[in-house]
Amino acid sequence: MTGKTLKKGSRCTICKSKNEKNKAVVFLPHHRLALCKKHYLEWFERRVAKTIKDFKMFNKNEKILVAVSGGKDSLVLWNVLNNLGYETEGMYIDLGIDEYSEDSKKLSVNFSNKINKKLNIVSIREEVASIPDIDKLTNKPACSACGTVKRYYMNKYAKNLGFQVIATGHNLDDETAVLFGNTLHWDLKYLKKQYPVLKEENGFIRKVKPLCKITEKETALYAFFTDIEYIEYECPFSEGASSIEYKEILSKIEEKHPGTKLQFYSNFVKSIYPILSEYDKKQSEEIKLCKKCGEPSFNEICSFCRLKELVNIGNTNN
Amino acid sequence: MTGKTLKKGSRCTICKSKNEKNKAVVFLPHHRLALCKKHYLEWFERRVAKTIKDFKMFNKNEKILVAVSGGKDSLVLWNVLNNLGYETEGMYIDLGIDEYSEDSKKLSVNFSNKINKKLNIVSIREEVASIPDIDKLTNKPACSACGTVKRYYMNKYAKNLGFQVIATGHNLDDETAVLFGNTLHWDLKYLKKQYPVLKEENGFIRKVKPLCKITEKETALYAFFTDIEYIEYECPFSEGASSIEYKEILSKIEEKHPGTKLQFYSNFVKSIYPILSEYDKKQSEEIKLCKKCGEPSFNEICSFCRLKELVNIGNTNN
Repeated sequence: MTGKTLKKGSRCTICKSKNEKNKAVVFLPHHRLALCKKHYLEWFERRVAKTIKDFKMFNKNEKILVAVSGGKDSLVLWNVLNNLGYETEGMYIDLGIDEYSEDSKKLSVNFSNKINKKLNIVSIREEVASIPDIDKLTNKPACSACGTVKRYYMNKYAKNLGFQVIATGHNLDDETAVLFGNTLHWDLKYLKKQYPVLKEENGFIRKVKPLCKITEKETALYAFFTDIEYIEYECPFSEGASSIEYKEILSKIEEKHPGTKLQFYSNFVKSIYPILSEYDKKQSEEIKLCKKCGEPSFNEICSFCRLKELVNIGNTNN
Repeated sequence: MTGKTLKKGSRCTICKSKNEKNKAVVFLPHHRLALCKKHYLEWFERRVAKTIKDFKMFNKNEKILVAVSGGKDSLVLWNVLNNLGYETEGMYIDLGIDEYSEDSKKLSVNFSNKINKKLNIVSIREEVASIPDIDKLTNKPACSACGTVKRYYMNKYAKNLGFQVIATGHNLDDETAVLFGNTLHWDLKYLKKQYPVLKEENGFIRKVKPLCKITEKETALYAFFTDIEYIEYECPFSEGASSIEYKEILSKIEEKHPGTKLQFYSNFVKSIYPILSEYDKKQSEEIKLCKKCGEPSFNEICSFCRLKELVNIGNTNN
């Protein structure tokens, strides 16, 4: 099989069933696989299980907190971890982005009810201010502020709730887009952190990305086949983000050369990351504790507390 | 100056002349410079001189062999080295690609007469076979075979003619396209060699790329202003080459974010190359001498002699 699209009437590579309703419905050109629905779902979950094992992300004795946004990736991840028999809870951070947050929260709650797992909810409007307010009150770009806030609360609450590890739904397209941007600038500080597992360290909890070898399309198909309802529109702040530009570029290359994204990511992780990481040991940044909140930080005052200060200044000036 | 095009009537950033004939004719968005013809040529040559100095490429006591293809980059390079007072000769490898080789040879000979410098010529048709014949007789892609042949003869003849160093006309667009390809695959073997200077080692002569920080457009402008006649059409074998695809992608990014190419290349050379190179010291490939021709090689038989063998087999079978 060398083409790029599914030929009508193709048989599933695994069951080879001639039965019309078991015919292949998915074609994965970079894996050279045509699969029926049943074997696609099996393939998908096996692939996630293999990623968890290969990178020693966690084991069945550990409690995993899944970062849930209401998007397809995090809900699919939660579903798969659940099916694979891991002990999980979800955590939803309500960013206060009007309709977008309301819709995504509702979908996250619905899904947690469906799989009968606990969803923890933090409202950042109550903790600091909503993302639209932070955007208005400070000169920080909304996406950067949102990242700071999410990382902070995920880490803090996971520890408070007694979890060993946070799993996020970052997929291959996310990871390659970020890797692409960091490579264009050769940003060593970020390249050194681009690995599917960030180990626990001085107050930072372990963070893992079990979908790092699954494409966005593959997750969407899994969600479709398992009737997972997710938020289908993008966050209003994401418009014009460079990651979207990079995703478009990589998708064009992928279309011409199937497998490029996977190779770009896997080879980095396998061949280059260990070299940069070895180098990093000599140059490592020291992790301190923030003088204001006591959470781990690379500076005297952590980026969350600095952001909070900007919000307070903005509030006073208004 | 923050725009991306030259505004009509702009003054030269350097001489600021109000004189109509000294008005800026070139705008370099990533350097934020608008320049008149005179100061553009000065800027260009100063930039090449700085690159030679920064990377310790060669000094005025060394004889430099310029690899001349008849294209704008190699002829511009020869012209600049000549103007900067370096002792040079040219070397043209006649690849026997019909009209393309005839035209480019004529332009190279004309240019060497114009600057009154010696041009050495090697005909690979006489030495092995023409590139079109190699393409027919072997299963090697023409561009790969051509690279093998050129590297082999450049190195061998430079030594025979008593040169210390070979200078090639690779520009920033060439270097970033290759770096981009090697990065997409994270090809450590090639990434470790991507530096503007490859030092002399066990029979390999020093190879330098003084135009590595000059874009293709900048070279074309220099050629235009100095009336250098060069071959304006591409080699017929280059069609569909992935380097052309990568150049297009990078040029689109550059258009939106001027300076990306230069940053991509410079940051790699400055921050990443030293790390890979340090790692390389532990993993270095051994350079042997080819058992057939005695030239340096990473294998028992060098890639040129293996290619020659394929040509002989092809000839016998025909």
